[in-house]
Amino acid sequence: MKVKYLLLAVSVMFSLMGYAQEVSSPNGNVLVKFSIKDNQPTYEISYKGKEVIRPSKMGFLLARDKHASMKMGERDLMKGFIIVKVATSSFDETWQPVWGETKDIRNHYNELLVTLRQKWDTPHYPSEPNVKGMWLEEHFRTMNVRFRVYDDGVGFRYEFPQQEELNYFIIKEEKTQFAMTGDHTAWWIPGDYDTQEYSIRTSRLSEIKNFYAEAEKESKGNSSSTLFSPTGVQTSLQMKTDDGLYINIHEAACLDYSTMHLNLDEKTMTFESWLTPDATGLKGCMQTPCSTPWRTVMVSDDARDMLSSNLILNLNEPCALDDVSWIHPTKYCGVWWEMIVGRNSWNYTDEYPSVQLDKIDYAKSKPNGKHGANNDEVRRYIDFAAKNGLDQVLVEGWNVGWEDWANMWKRDVFDFVTPYPDFDIKALNDYAHSKGVKLMMHHETSSSTQNYERHLTDALNLMNKYGYDAVKTGYVGDIIPRGDHHYSQSMNNHYLHVVKEAAKHHVMVNAHEATRPTGICRTYPNMGGTESARGTEYEAFHGNNPDHTVILPFTRLQGGPMDYTPGIFETQLKNWSQNQNFVHTTLCGQLALYLVMYSPLQMAADLPENYAKFDDALQFIRDVACDWDDSRYIEAEPGDYITVARKAKGKDSWFIGGKCDERGHEAVVTLDFLDEGKTYECTIYADAKDAHYEKKPKAYTITKKKVKKGDTLKIKEAPGGGFAVSLF
Amino acid sequence: MKVKYLLLAVSVMFSLMGYAQEVSSPNGNVLVKFSIKDNQPTYEISYKGKEVIRPSKMGFLLARDKHASMKMGERDLMKGFIIVKVATSSFDETWQPVWGETKDIRNHYNELLVTLRQKWDTPHYPSEPNVKGMWLEEHFRTMNVRFRVYDDGVGFRYEFPQQEELNYFIIKEEKTQFAMTGDHTAWWIPGDYDTQEYSIRTSRLSEIKNFYAEAEKESKGNSSSTLFSPTGVQTSLQMKTDDGLYINIHEAACLDYSTMHLNLDEKTMTFESWLTPDATGLKGCMQTPCSTPWRTVMVSDDARDMLSSNLILNLNEPCALDDVSWIHPTKYCGVWWEMIVGRNSWNYTDEYPSVQLDKIDYAKSKPNGKHGANNDEVRRYIDFAAKNGLDQVLVEGWNVGWEDWANMWKRDVFDFVTPYPDFDIKALNDYAHSKGVKLMMHHETSSSTQNYERHLTDALNLMNKYGYDAVKTGYVGDIIPRGDHHYSQSMNNHYLHVVKEAAKHHVMVNAHEATRPTGICRTYPNMGGTESARGTEYEAFHGNNPDHTVILPFTRLQGGPMDYTPGIFETQLKNWSQNQNFVHTTLCGQLALYLVMYSPLQMAADLPENYAKFDDALQFIRDVACDWDDSRYIEAEPGDYITVARKAKGKDSWFIGGKCDERGHEAVVTLDFLDEGKTYECTIYADAKDAHYEKKPKAYTITKKKVKKGDTLKIKEAPGGGFAVSLF
Repeated sequence: MKVKYLLLAVSVMFSLMGYAQEVSSPNGNVLVKFSIKDNQPTYEISYKGKEVIRPSKMGFLLARDKHASMKMGERDLMKGFIIVKVATSSFDETWQPVWGETKDIRNHYNELLVTLRQKWDTPHYPSEPNVKGMWLEEHFRTMNVRFRVYDDGVGFRYEFPQQEELNYFIIKEEKTQFAMTGDHTAWWIPGDYDTQEYSIRTSRLSEIKNFYAEAEKESKGNSSSTLFSPTGVQTSLQMKTDDGLYINIHEAACLDYSTMHLNLDEKTMTFESWLTPDATGLKGCMQTPCSTPWRTVMVSDDARDMLSSNLILNLNEPCALDDVSWIHPTKYCGVWWEMIVGRNSWNYTDEYPSVQLDKIDYAKSKPNGKHGANNDEVRRYIDFAAKNGLDQVLVEGWNVGWEDWANMWKRDVFDFVTPYPDFDIKALNDYAHSKGVKLMMHHETSSSTQNYERHLTDALNLMNKYGYDAVKTGYVGDIIPRGDHHYSQSMNNHYLHVVKEAAKHHVMVNAHEATRPTGICRTYPNMGGTESARGTEYEAFHGNNPDHTVILPFTRLQGGPMDYTPGIFETQLKNWSQNQNFVHTTLCGQLALYLVMYSPLQMAADLPENYAKFDDALQFIRDVACDWDDSRYIEAEPGDYITVARKAKGKDSWFIGGKCDERGHEAVVTLDFLDEGKTYECTIYADAKDAHYEKKPKAYTITKKKVKKGDTLKIKEAPGGGFAVSLF
Repeated sequence: MKVKYLLLAVSVMFSLMGYAQEVSSPNGNVLVKFSIKDNQPTYEISYKGKEVIRPSKMGFLLARDKHASMKMGERDLMKGFIIVKVATSSFDETWQPVWGETKDIRNHYNELLVTLRQKWDTPHYPSEPNVKGMWLEEHFRTMNVRFRVYDDGVGFRYEFPQQEELNYFIIKEEKTQFAMTGDHTAWWIPGDYDTQEYSIRTSRLSEIKNFYAEAEKESKGNSSSTLFSPTGVQTSLQMKTDDGLYINIHEAACLDYSTMHLNLDEKTMTFESWLTPDATGLKGCMQTPCSTPWRTVMVSDDARDMLSSNLILNLNEPCALDDVSWIHPTKYCGVWWEMIVGRNSWNYTDEYPSVQLDKIDYAKSKPNGKHGANNDEVRRYIDFAAKNGLDQVLVEGWNVGWEDWANMWKRDVFDFVTPYPDFDIKALNDYAHSKGVKLMMHHETSSSTQNYERHLTDALNLMNKYGYDAVKTGYVGDIIPRGDHHYSQSMNNHYLHVVKEAAKHHVMVNAHEATRPTGICRTYPNMGGTESARGTEYEAFHGNNPDHTVILPFTRLQGGPMDYTPGIFETQLKNWSQNQNFVHTTLCGQLALYLVMYSPLQMAADLPENYAKFDDALQFIRDVACDWDDSRYIEAEPGDYITVARKAKGKDSWFIGGKCDERGHEAVVTLDFLDEGKTYECTIYADAKDAHYEKKPKAYTITKKKVKKGDTLKIKEAPGGGFAVSLF
């Protein structure tokens, strides 16, 4: 309505429209072009002159709202845009993460900021009855698109300045396209509003829909799942073109916004954003000034660049916490695997068909005799942790409410402060502390988020009282409030709320079943490893594919580390339980995960008695760091193999890990990263010659030798196997 | 599945089925019959031999749920019931409310508890492939119906014991019928999931649907409204039969359950329960053991019995608070009416098109110059309260966020702890306390309930810090989480959560726009007056009908007192503002409301400068009590007139109030309730001869005389008028 802007807009418009705006990466390899095509914002991306993203449309469908105050939001942000301003800039800084794969991270990009104006007219008629005629009132709305172009990819986001004509709006759908250049090979999981715990598929894009029946069947096994389209996939989506380009689509800094999925139009091989809805089916309530998360496209002709990229971290805001001294990488064990495998239980009693916390006196209940989180068992794990240099002991099932906790639509399922009668919270924490170990808290919310928020302050106060500094949270089952989804805007806000409240109490958060991360651990580094994918637990529920952990670093780990809970030495579960499943790696494959699946939070997930049988291999877990000064990806191919060397934070020691799929692999590692002139004590944990993840998983060799810079190690990895090396 | 129960069930069944179970009230006037008709539970009610509720079915439709654990819930609780046990008992006790219309309340009823069993078979086939044949497995499910029969009506509820075959279930709809005996006259408001702020209609039942277009239009004026059926009405529903029976349907003790509406089947003149849904359309998540709220049917041939009944309070649980010493009746004024009428504003600045609390520095914002809650204005109200014996001063608009608070889908709209720059929270509270007055807190939630719960503890701590002991809460606008409704199970749980948390901080709660009460102030007496109906504020928005306040005591007030905010002396708003509306009562009609609309929370809602013009009439507000030892309803007819006398708590003084509709009334009050032998100083505040709510509202006389027991007062009430009397 501000007509004075009009002339300015028009004058700039003429100078800009019709010309594509371009910006390239610092080394020139990545090029973004932006233009208005058919009145609609359009971008394209190339890499070393090869097309990566064909011209792709950008915009939003907005929802109508019954409140007149939002009437301006009813006009879609799709057509009618002109470019009114273009600004380019460069940025180069190096920053230090609180924890990470490298000590320093360089954030180096060229930026293109395009100011777009949408114009439309509304007819107006004179209010006096005798005056005839009408006139058009002009309206303008501003939307910016900001591109940051790195040598290994692009991030872009929409920005909405505060303005009269766009103050509040509701997103019906984001319509950001990613037009592929062909029928690429992809590593993907089905699009779902509530779970990421799918086996990762490898297929051509055109084959995605063929897996839908299988996905529907698989989804039924999950505690909460909502598939939305036969051609829907989740991000991070890893692809490879037939001419050897690696392309990855994900997002960065998804804070107060719905999680983005992608839906494929097979005719044009074009992905389009597909946001997660709330209970009413709408996808975001926005108030200007605001912006979307960054949409990221990583690209390289070297697969290793997909793993070493810091693009997503760099697109997040710097650390928001003043004091990070209490945040630390953590190695831990826990009273957990024995329940997952089914030998023990989280719940204390089987006496009642259901429980209501305010009506049960657990002290008078009949114990079921297999409650895992009992004083003796926890002490045994504390002893194990103390003996093996582990920092913490996770204890699940310590608190009342597990008798009927999941998927009953119970709001008040847990109170997060009341222990079972056989878990002496004070005595156990005291005992742990006396041994230099901490307990790790566990807050299963059962996805009853309202209940969790009501108890959160009391729960964190309890943790402070007894000396816990880390919590594993869980979101099993359908969300309460009913109808909402795990990855909606409101749930993403909830997870962040928990992380922020925890930070006030100096508590680190390891969220399970929550939204997959988008690099926000840069801003909130108390969010360490989280889950958000099919973890080790599925080895007890029919297994993970042997290639699972040589895909995850290309996909799920792009947004942040995963609490994969590796270290299962007794891979054949029937050897100590009724569970007939087996782990789909060799023992050495398990060791490799401490390197290949980077996380500042690493579990030694097996039982103490199982580790006792392989104490020489356990030495590697005792030794391995989980925070790093440097990381070198030596070999990588999605779904085939990954080999990585990492230098321990603040130390001279290096660790190398290699993991492969069911076809095996021979890793060749030239030690050119070692210090000149120094001799290293090298210990190699390798699969034995006839090792095999199914037939002979626990066959391994441990070799020690001296090495120096420039030496080459050739290590054979068995089918489903891997290796680990320590260099002191 | 417990076959051993079968024989027992059958044997009892034969002795009970086919015979109606009966229970009558202590004086025999009210009779309930219960039986199984067409395999379905059925009840009927009569009063002095006249049919009140014709045979009416009872039951529930249950929702299917995708989780197998709830599969038992998929079978409706409608058909297939037999009576397996019947128990009758009597109860008679007298209890004392913390505050109320009378010092003592007698709870005297006869009870009928019917245990019902539903039986069904499921076919089973042998698991071994070579064995043929099938068998039927028998299933049993128990549901109880409990009737409490009082001399003035009936309460009944469903009870679900804990049992294997009914552990968790989701209600699709409650199907409790109330079959009327004819086309009664009814006083009703349209059924709506989000607002009760409708004008009350008076019509025959058959005419309800004729008002729907009007209701739709009216609903659009409300900040949140969801009409659900042209024949839907809300409770409490007051009716009158052609042969002079007064019948009222409502509910008692609606705690963790959805609010019940009624929908009329005009062919059979049968109402059926219609619960409020959650965002997914479902109506309740239940876990046994549990019960529904009480469904209440009050009945009498004397309209006064509708007003003096304690049936709904009696059906609630006794006080749940150990210490109630901090709960007190309250008279208050407030910085409120000046904003409602439109002279001042809640917000501090008009500078921004929208605000985000973490991005605005209000100290640097440009004030709009009409912010009501400023230091000077609040001091003026404190002085007024202190001078006139009022206990508290409500201040709305004291806290940041009012610039764009309503219906923008903002989650973080208020923080409930940060004052505007011109509201010195410490100085103002100190000033108030120095004058023997307290400030009353205001928490408008904007219906962003998640945000309110997140800030609730801090907000209550702030109140404790500065000496507030009461809060007015507000729920304007559509509920966040989106899709939920004001009267759903989850929101009812929210309101109760707030009341319970407030009680921990010794804070009284006056909720506006929340669910209409169902007597739970007996259990949580810190829930004093609340809103949940069209209050005085609507006099500034086109007005309330003159008969409004002689219907509300029959309907809205059945569940608990209302914060109606009476006391508008300057009924013609244009005399001090731009608002062209007028209040639809005389000045004396306003005085009458302090008696007729019982509440332990009474506002003197007008501005100090308006009261200054009528200081002689203000004396009544100074004098009137708001807690009572005794109450006598002297005259009553819904929509026409109400006259009531009340004895001040712990004192010898009485107060009498009378209110009428637009047709005027002559009240005849025989003072037979006064103490024998005592002479009382009687002051009568009456409409002047020519007074009229529209034409001459502020014409009144004040007469003083001596009276004694047995004297009769005849007082003329003008159209839309009323009177008030004090007796010392």
